[in-house]
Amino acid sequence: MTREERFENGLGVLQRVDGEAGQKVVDSLADISPELAHQVVAWAFGDMYARPNLAPRDRQLVTLGILTALGGCEPQLEVHTHAALNVGLKPDEIVEAMLHAAVYCGMPRAVNATFTAKKVFTERDLMPVHNT
Amino acid sequence: MTREERFENGLGVLQRVDGEAGQKVVDSLADISPELAHQVVAWAFGDMYARPNLAPRDRQLVTLGILTALGGCEPQLEVHTHAALNVGLKPDEIVEAMLHAAVYCGMPRAVNATFTAKKVFTERDLMPVHNT
Amino acid sequence: MTREERFENGLGVLQRVDGEAGQKVVDSLADISPELAHQVVAWAFGDMYARPNLAPRDRQLVTLGILTALGGCEPQLEVHTHAALNVGLKPDEIVEAMLHAAVYCGMPRAVNATFTAKKVFTERDLMPVHNT
Amino acid sequence: MTREERFENGLGVLQRVDGEAGQKVVDSLADISPELAHQVVAWAFGDMYARPNLAPRDRQLVTLGILTALGGCEPQLEVHTHAALNVGLKPDEIVEAMLHAAVYCGMPRAVNATFTAKKVFTERDLMPVHNT
Amino acid sequence: MTREERFENGLGVLQRVDGEAGQKVVDSLADISPELAHQVVAWAFGDMYARPNLAPRDRQLVTLGILTALGGCEPQLEVHTHAALNVGLKPDEIVEAMLHAAVYCGMPRAVNATFTAKKVFTERDLMPVHNT
Amino acid sequence: MTREERFENGLGVLQRVDGEAGQKVVDSLADISPELAHQVVAWAFGDMYARPNLAPRDRQLVTLGILTALGGCEPQLEVHTHAALNVGLKPDEIVEAMLHAAVYCGMPRAVNATFTAKKVFTERDLMPVHNT
Repeated sequence: MTREERFENGLGVLQRVDGEAGQKVVDSLADISPELAHQVVAWAFGDMYARPNLAPRDRQLVTLGILTALGGCEPQLEVHTHAALNVGLKPDEIVEAMLHAAVYCGMPRAVNATFTAKKVFTERDLMPVHNT
Repeated sequence: MTREERFENGLGVLQRVDGEAGQKVVDSLADISPELAHQVVAWAFGDMYARPNLAPRDRQLVTLGILTALGGCEPQLEVHTHAALNVGLKPDEIVEAMLHAAVYCGMPRAVNATFTAKKVFTERDLMPVHNT
Repeated sequence: MTREERFENGLGVLQRVDGEAGQKVVDSLADISPELAHQVVAWAFGDMYARPNLAPRDRQLVTLGILTALGGCEPQLEVHTHAALNVGLKPDEIVEAMLHAAVYCGMPRAVNATFTAKKVFTERDLMPVHNT
Repeated sequence: MTREERFENGLGVLQRVDGEAGQKVVDSLADISPELAHQVVAWAFGDMYARPNLAPRDRQLVTLGILTALGGCEPQLEVHTHAALNVGLKPDEIVEAMLHAAVYCGMPRAVNATFTAKKVFTERDLMPVHNT
Repeated sequence: MTREERFENGLGVLQRVDGEAGQKVVDSLADISPELAHQVVAWAFGDMYARPNLAPRDRQLVTLGILTALGGCEPQLEVHTHAALNVGLKPDEIVEAMLHAAVYCGMPRAVNATFTAKKVFTERDLMPVHNT
Repeated sequence: MTREERFENGLGVLQRVDGEAGQKVVDSLADISPELAHQVVAWAFGDMYARPNLAPRDRQLVTLGILTALGGCEPQLEVHTHAALNVGLKPDEIVEAMLHAAVYCGMPRAVNATFTAKKVFTERDLMPVHNT
């Protein structure tokens, strides 16, 4: 594959997973680090997300776990809360994953992630969530 | 104890320690993750904060250390700067704890924590602080 | 439920999920922090793991993501690689989750997690793994 | 050297490296933690930055790596993107350092750092950057 | 003060707080980074630990919180568990601080810190600890 | 380029930068996650390290900063201390970079990184280092 084909291939995966939210990130990178935009699309989505062995829904569960744990990744958690919904996770599953995270990375990370999900669910008219 | 009794019990501890700032977090969680709200109140405050062996003031020193070190926990640091004042830590002790943190987690975390404290102290009319 | 009942309830969940590896951690905590042992069992497993909304397999995917991202949690990753196998994740799925993590938390965390999985798979005679 | 001489000495280094952006941080600390302001100036700049063995440009490469990896240090990354330019790093080198960071700390940290650089480059009229 | 006087001053503080365990770290640094050894002694202990506003016992509570949260700092936690005992914290207070940390940085960090304390308490014949 | 060509290309870069230490990591991954081995070689080295805009020496300064800051990456720091020497950084520059890191990520990370460098320098008969 050429560099352009790798990019085109990755763009298809990015759009299926992250949708409009992912496209915006790539667009915002275009005039400051076009190579980072290329690597996000061609490598992260084209090479990694497209791999077998783990379904898209499973990849988002892993991703939500990582982004919640890292902290300071609210913009990425927002994109991936959209992604999680796009690949079939339900709001109460997303919120439950963030609750579960409290056991392993503590309450503040879980709370911050949950407020990011709240922002996305509000935009997509998915509130309220009943996970009790 | 029933689930409701555990919640009520924790709410009393939360209000004594975190005051209004803590209550707001719990309220904001109610429509997105009522179970996370429950666990913050019933477990973190009812089960953990209420334990013996460490005085409330000591728990806030540990908590300030952790939140400063984690980074990306400014909302929690704000709540716990209020909490630190509520349980008897003085402004210059809080600021000193954040200065001390520079040794162990570096200047950026110490500076970010200190600016969060500044926000709370300004609201509560406790500025300026003289820790030289 | 009494404190003892909460512990007994959690112990059943711990044994189903983590198996012998989890039991060992709890035993090692008994003479240094029996309350931490209690909270791991009664709260983390009894209250949190046992909740609905997310299947055991899904919880392990989130957990593997978090522990890989945190770093310095090799002992916990070892226990949870066992747990992941116990709840039905296959070796190539576990290894794929850690590969996927490289996108979000970088190569070193992904490599360290993968070597921990290698240790567990070797013990359980599950090597080699073919994820290409 | 007296305490005042150590401060004066550090202030000179701070102004050469961080410029106006660094001075603002020190000023903002004056009424909340004058001792933290003192330590940033007298110790971090006067004692550490002024040392031999590593050129100012090299120190900024190390610093950009650290701040990108830590996460939640956007205010410091902003100051140090200015500093990096002040000591002679070119925009495409700064952006390349942040791209390189993706290998070791993952895409989200690299993306967040790059957007911080974009803010500074826009202020200083250094956009667009072509690093492909 | 001269450089040598700052070092001598810090060495006194280091020995009172960290004891033999701190001295060993400084000695081990002597042939690889004598300047890091100097900064640990002269700055961290001589300038920072010796400051007013926070008692030695309080500084160790903050330090235990930070080191537990950071992860991967087991050698430092070992030194500072000794330090905590040296400045008057009791075993059950140290263990309680680490238990409390679970709320803010999750179970794995709390468990790893607790096992480090267990190592120190065993050496100093302070086991078992009853914190239930 | 084909997948094999991308791997071969990356292997050349890996061997020039990391030398034998990098090759060992790749070999150890072969039977647990051959795809992770492939991505380290083909992507991290073939695509990223081989890029222009930043000299190999500069990339190691950024890398040392990141790995020191992340913590828990001692195996990677060991490989990259070798790499730093291989691309022309001198022992006192490497040790100075780790000392500089103390300002931004605190003493424990700086000390742990320095002890890893000590291990490598001892193997390569480069001790003692005089950075005072």
